Amino acid sequence: MKTKSTNLDIYKKNFPKSKKVYIEGSNKIKVPVRMIELTNTNLNKSNTYNEPVYVYDTTGPYTDEKHNIDLIHGLNPIRKEWIKNRKRKSNLITQLEYAKEGIVTSEMEYVAIRENSTLYNKFPQKSKISPEFVRDEIASGRAIIPCNINHPELEPMIIGKNFLTKINANIGSSPVTSSITEELDKLLWSIRWGADTVMDLSTGKDIFETRERIIRNSPVPIGTVPIYEALEKVNGKPEDLNYEIFRDILLQQAQQGVDYFTIHAGVRLSYIPKTMNRTTGIVSRGGSIIAKWCLTHHKENFLYTNFEDICEIMKKYDISFSLGDGLRPGSIADANDDAQFSELETSGELTKIARKHNVQVMIEGPGHIPLHKIKENVTKEEYWCDEAPFYTLGPLVTDIAPGYDHITSAIGAANIGSYGTSLLCYVTPKEHLGLPNKEDVKDGIIAYKIAAHAADLAKGHPAAQIRDDALSKARFEFRWEDQFNLSLDPYKSKEFHDETLPQESAKVAHFCSMCGPHFCSMKITQDIRDYATKKGIEDIKIAVDIGLKEKSDEFIEKGKNIYIKK
Amino acid sequence: MKTKSTNLDIYKKNFPKSKKVYIEGSNKIKVPVRMIELTNTNLNKSNTYNEPVYVYDTTGPYTDEKHNIDLIHGLNPIRKEWIKNRKRKSNLITQLEYAKEGIVTSEMEYVAIRENSTLYNKFPQKSKISPEFVRDEIASGRAIIPCNINHPELEPMIIGKNFLTKINANIGSSPVTSSITEELDKLLWSIRWGADTVMDLSTGKDIFETRERIIRNSPVPIGTVPIYEALEKVNGKPEDLNYEIFRDILLQQAQQGVDYFTIHAGVRLSYIPKTMNRTTGIVSRGGSIIAKWCLTHHKENFLYTNFEDICEIMKKYDISFSLGDGLRPGSIADANDDAQFSELETSGELTKIARKHNVQVMIEGPGHIPLHKIKENVTKEEYWCDEAPFYTLGPLVTDIAPGYDHITSAIGAANIGSYGTSLLCYVTPKEHLGLPNKEDVKDGIIAYKIAAHAADLAKGHPAAQIRDDALSKARFEFRWEDQFNLSLDPYKSKEFHDETLPQESAKVAHFCSMCGPHFCSMKITQDIRDYATKKGIEDIKIAVDIGLKEKSDEFIEKGKNIYIKK
Repeated sequence: MKTKSTNLDIYKKNFPKSKKVYIEGSNKIKVPVRMIELTNTNLNKSNTYNEPVYVYDTTGPYTDEKHNIDLIHGLNPIRKEWIKNRKRKSNLITQLEYAKEGIVTSEMEYVAIRENSTLYNKFPQKSKISPEFVRDEIASGRAIIPCNINHPELEPMIIGKNFLTKINANIGSSPVTSSITEELDKLLWSIRWGADTVMDLSTGKDIFETRERIIRNSPVPIGTVPIYEALEKVNGKPEDLNYEIFRDILLQQAQQGVDYFTIHAGVRLSYIPKTMNRTTGIVSRGGSIIAKWCLTHHKENFLYTNFEDICEIMKKYDISFSLGDGLRPGSIADANDDAQFSELETSGELTKIARKHNVQVMIEGPGHIPLHKIKENVTKEEYWCDEAPFYTLGPLVTDIAPGYDHITSAIGAANIGSYGTSLLCYVTPKEHLGLPNKEDVKDGIIAYKIAAHAADLAKGHPAAQIRDDALSKARFEFRWEDQFNLSLDPYKSKEFHDETLPQESAKVAHFCSMCGPHFCSMKITQDIRDYATKKGIEDIKIAVDIGLKEKSDEFIEKGKNIYIKK
Repeated sequence: MKTKSTNLDIYKKNFPKSKKVYIEGSNKIKVPVRMIELTNTNLNKSNTYNEPVYVYDTTGPYTDEKHNIDLIHGLNPIRKEWIKNRKRKSNLITQLEYAKEGIVTSEMEYVAIRENSTLYNKFPQKSKISPEFVRDEIASGRAIIPCNINHPELEPMIIGKNFLTKINANIGSSPVTSSITEELDKLLWSIRWGADTVMDLSTGKDIFETRERIIRNSPVPIGTVPIYEALEKVNGKPEDLNYEIFRDILLQQAQQGVDYFTIHAGVRLSYIPKTMNRTTGIVSRGGSIIAKWCLTHHKENFLYTNFEDICEIMKKYDISFSLGDGLRPGSIADANDDAQFSELETSGELTKIARKHNVQVMIEGPGHIPLHKIKENVTKEEYWCDEAPFYTLGPLVTDIAPGYDHITSAIGAANIGSYGTSLLCYVTPKEHLGLPNKEDVKDGIIAYKIAAHAADLAKGHPAAQIRDDALSKARFEFRWEDQFNLSLDPYKSKEFHDETLPQESAKVAHFCSMCGPHFCSMKITQDIRDYATKKGIEDIKIAVDIGLKEKSDEFIEKGKNIYIKK
């Protein structure tokens, strides 16, 4: 097995002026947060300190200076003791069971601290998310913490509409490409840029070993679609599948530590004819596999008929359901149709069954939806599925831009996120065309970090605007390096600036190449402020206040006199 | 003067399988439209013809095989005769005057045909936009056709919420970079990718000559911000400006043929203190220049006090106002604040004055707005400005992604477009960082074509979904070349596909590198459809219909029996 990557060093290096710090909780809880140090403001000969900005950190131990990357041994099992200790006290397993019993687990405390981490040096404690709030959200089913007890390396995170919007990146080998080393590299790359969860969609050979290496080295929840591996077992022939084969795969993956399973249990036999006149039929791999099986055997979906057994297995490991949208629309023409909504309604039915078994649930959503139909999707999901967290792929708001579908879908993702979708599955520029390389993975993640953050701003999340405000202040004060370092991609923003003005002196210049010194509106604004300060801003304000009381035409004359008096 | 570009040939070449055709109207009107030819559908041994798809064509005569590109002589003045002929009959000048008189001009007929051009081979005539509808929209002020009588080379286009959403690209030399050749190249490049209007924001030397070459070679409306050239005249010192200097520039640019002027007349003296506590002050160049002038002289904005005189000048050439948003917010923190809305309300006041003078008007908008505050901007604009077309820059929905602001702002643009904004000013990836190069210009345009199209879909424009449907059908039928050719960027979509599967045979393969042959959901769907057809889809549907009448639990049993009977 070849798992030594030649350039692991890049993963050790934090972003410029960023430092990994930890916030401590009880029971040796140490929650990572990235601190971005800023320079001072130098204006009008005064020198003012700017507080560092704290941002949510998904990069795991890799960016910890003290951590030695060893992909063979994997990460430290930080949750091992928590799991062991509570096992001694009770026979509960899932976070949902604990929550229903009113018990706050270490995972709940961890995510509470983590959700507050960007508020590190802001606001009083009372405005922050408490572990009890986390527990109550989980008990209600509105949020989940995907955390297989066999994935102790995990840094817990929460998915739910009352928390920060999260993003998922897909990786995975395909029959034609990729090695384990490449997939591990994509995992580290994804979390470096901000992926909150990662799905391993491997379909090629070494599928078991690839997954094992990914889980052992992943600080973020790992999701899979077990039917893919089941299909490999029957040589790619959906009709040869059966529940026993699927169940074996499920148990094996559960044992390995997969944190959430996409299960296409809602694709019922009776819904398949509803897709017959669609423009793009069934575009979910899992959905089409199940549909073919159902139709060939004239039988109800075996995932639906065996759903309670699946719950029993998943409960034993605290694996969360991601109820797959096997009939999601694959085009604008098919959006919000009967096939999709029928499955969604069934997912609601299954949600109730899963929760009865104390298994955590989220619901997958489309796909392709025009802007004006997005809200209906969220409304129906919340209604039918009792507010189980919604996890959508995009959606793409038009079909006409292959090669740019990270943008097309980021538009939809920002919107659906603002309506309450908790987890946004990224789309890369290669969507519909080919397998994403590392650059595509990064482009997809950045587009989705933008979408998720836009959604958090729109939802009025108290922590969201801190980073925007800090960056805008840096921009206005021509603190170029701070502007770069506060951005989602410090390297690219610096590179773009330096393309036209590479000199070091330009990094403190009060203009840039866009407008040059004469036309820089921000420089002129600062001149105006300096002028106003010198002349007495109070005088100007009083004059203006009087003016505002008059009708606009009169003001021109009166205003003139007021100023002339000075 | 160096205006010979070395690679003009690329502008002559149409997109793959695209052909320029013309739709004829009266008075020798010839409206261009791009026809994309498709291949036949080959499924189940049947071979079905696919009608070509027609898309709106902004590329001008350059993509006409018979046109010889000559940047020295410029384009043919196609409007010359129209303007001359109607001058003989009346002393009216502006499209607004004609519309108010109930007269349909050639420009109105042209844009009516153009708006319908994507419906070329669809729907009966009655569902199409008529010249009379265009006229009435212009008479009401809800739409404008920017068309200086001294820009006869123009192919008329319409801006208004009841028409296709349009996009604007900015070009222009800066004090440090660019030659005339480069700017002409950017013009041709912009319209090639779909810019509906172009603003020349030149601020460097050769500003007059650059503009002259741009107008003479532009088939799309050209906008400028005359205060930039005025500032050059006073060596970059805003306080040395006065109305006389500005007026001279205005007359000169009007004479040259500029189609719309950004005029920051709404930045009133009394609004300036409202920006003092902003995070990013005044970020509009024009706004900051005017603000500095007002404050230095303690006088009302000379553009406001001389507004009627400006109207008189613009009326003589049928130049449209683009009432500048000089106090637009430059950060999320400053969005929808009192300064911005005060100016917007004043723009409404000025709109009424301009219309009294029969001058066409559109209104500029921000900038930076979080998702949940976007709608308020459109609502206020429509209310205060009597539905004058809204023309917004983005807006960016977060500040944290410099280097990716084409994406950040495309999210805002799609949303504001869906609420009725008529013209979306692009933002390139270099925004806030440096001057865009050709690749950046293209990336900005594509992001905005996506946003505008997403808005048209959301508004339910009858023509909008044709292209989506054709592309999705091609995708589902594995007509790869058609998928590429129907996309906004045929070259990139093909390049991305070929990166992993370069063989020619892969272009007819019923799978791609994303999933490989076994996991291709669309291939499996087609198998399902074939199977259903063979087995008799009616049988399946009847069985399912019966099943649907039963409760879901009962259905499992009954459904089984029904199928077993077969």
